Amino acid sequence: MNVSIIAGGAGFVGCNLLPLLAKEDRHLMVLDNLCRGREEYLDAARDAAPGRVHFVHVDLSDHAATLQAFESALKLGAIDEVWHLAANSDIPAGVMDANVDLRDTFMTTFSLLEAMKLYKVPALHFASSSAIYGDLGGVPLHEAIGPLLPISNYGAMKLASEALISAAAESYLERANLFRFPNVVGAPATHGVILDFINKLQTDPGRLDVLGDGTQQKAYLHVSDLVDAMMHIRAATHLPKIFPVNIGPVDDGVTVRFIAQSVIARVSPQAGIHFGTGNKGWVGDVPKFQYSVERLREAGWAPSRNSADAVRHAIDQIATQEGFAAGVTNG
Amino acid sequence: MNVSIIAGGAGFVGCNLLPLLAKEDRHLMVLDNLCRGREEYLDAARDAAPGRVHFVHVDLSDHAATLQAFESALKLGAIDEVWHLAANSDIPAGVMDANVDLRDTFMTTFSLLEAMKLYKVPALHFASSSAIYGDLGGVPLHEAIGPLLPISNYGAMKLASEALISAAAESYLERANLFRFPNVVGAPATHGVILDFINKLQTDPGRLDVLGDGTQQKAYLHVSDLVDAMMHIRAATHLPKIFPVNIGPVDDGVTVRFIAQSVIARVSPQAGIHFGTGNKGWVGDVPKFQYSVERLREAGWAPSRNSADAVRHAIDQIATQEGFAAGVTNG
Repeated sequence: MNVSIIAGGAGFVGCNLLPLLAKEDRHLMVLDNLCRGREEYLDAARDAAPGRVHFVHVDLSDHAATLQAFESALKLGAIDEVWHLAANSDIPAGVMDANVDLRDTFMTTFSLLEAMKLYKVPALHFASSSAIYGDLGGVPLHEAIGPLLPISNYGAMKLASEALISAAAESYLERANLFRFPNVVGAPATHGVILDFINKLQTDPGRLDVLGDGTQQKAYLHVSDLVDAMMHIRAATHLPKIFPVNIGPVDDGVTVRFIAQSVIARVSPQAGIHFGTGNKGWVGDVPKFQYSVERLREAGWAPSRNSADAVRHAIDQIATQEGFAAGVTNG
Repeated sequence: MNVSIIAGGAGFVGCNLLPLLAKEDRHLMVLDNLCRGREEYLDAARDAAPGRVHFVHVDLSDHAATLQAFESALKLGAIDEVWHLAANSDIPAGVMDANVDLRDTFMTTFSLLEAMKLYKVPALHFASSSAIYGDLGGVPLHEAIGPLLPISNYGAMKLASEALISAAAESYLERANLFRFPNVVGAPATHGVILDFINKLQTDPGRLDVLGDGTQQKAYLHVSDLVDAMMHIRAATHLPKIFPVNIGPVDDGVTVRFIAQSVIARVSPQAGIHFGTGNKGWVGDVPKFQYSVERLREAGWAPSRNSADAVRHAIDQIATQEGFAAGVTNG
């Protein structure tokens, strides 16, 4: 039986992906440092695939430890793919200290590629990011645009990872998908604007302070659509060996104001919203962008939810996760 | 008096740049690991600027050592710019072992940026590369093209460095030029196709074996034009804060066959040329590309030599360097 390695698989995206992979007759080896992830997030996949979901607690920026984890996986069968979902997900922390993204976002890629080269693992599916594009000033972001000038160390180390994977694809990988994630929402939330807003309202149900003037607009994809898109691209056989592709909804997104109002409607309808000034939340944040998903559509995939629906569904899930009674959403 | 730090300044490009910087009333602090560079390459600049050219032997991938070297420079005056010319220049070695470009091409950038952040150095001039573009199949390579899919670890780590510098420009740098170098020729040559050919003919004056079929075509810039272009961009005041720019000649380049024939004409007219097959020399080599230099021309700069003249002039210089009598060139 073949083995999939899922690096960072105990995190938000990983635990939504695992149940889909578990439907196949294969072993799933999750490698995670449990910095944001939790081992209990694997429970659903473990229930669905008894004896086929495995876990190693490992820091993937540590090359020797990564090789050891691959050795464990090899005892189960041939490793035919790696999903690389591991990264620092706290963008401001990475702007403050470049070592964070160097270690968690980039050196994880480096170590995984070295292991894949050594053990001849043919396919890599990489969680890249719209952050690689930087702030191109409102022009639609498609895969053939440049220059790529990321404005956060997170975006920089995602682009750096893409670059390294690209060189590896020329030299020894048989296939590499570079999935450029949009803003993704859903449960289990470990961070992000929706969870922040809900937590603020738990502290003060009467008032929600919002960073920036609320006009910042972004496209959001629900994580269920994200993992579906990745599985679709993985199954496609006619695509180039190295395939950078934007994943996102087809709409232009929703504003921070919309998210704030939707959160309030779900968890604390009596709260007032207090906006700041400017349309950048923090250094490294890109105010408004249009994300071109033409390439993904040409590859035959379309999302089931637009940004507004994705956000409302995620708000309902996260509110439930945080202890608010289910079923009172208006979304 | 202000101080320029020139990382990798004892190498091929550095020692051609130093005499231009030495004309200004400033200290030059050269940091180099002397892997390819040599301290005697600084002699010309030292003669031109007695007491103002300094040298520290340092591995710039070592963060603590880099900080220490900056401390030395600060004793001379305020550091107002860093030129980052340090990199692994053996592309095939980096394809074999990814650690080479990780350390010498990328971690040098990381350490320098950390030092610049700490000591508030405002401007960075970075030696990037056409290798960041990868193999886009013959379309003209301009700065706004994508996707950027480098095919060597060298190209990958240059792109990774650009990405990190871009994030730094958003956060703390005042100015960053990303000089995307073409193939550069001239003296003192430490590696490259011309030196290889001359060395082969020194071993066997009757025969020159060429990797590939000789049809591989590239644009070449003479190093004297390269450093002139960089000084031109550095002096321009109207350019964006972060400025990726291709540097190169305006022609489509010359073939390996042309170079082989020109070398033979200069050093061993009786030799026969034996070509291999295919138009790629090695993994990571891009067969033919057109390099758009429109952006550089709009910034007001044009080269003094085309590719053919640059190659012939470099052959003459390198032949002289390698001990062939000067003045018999037909170039």
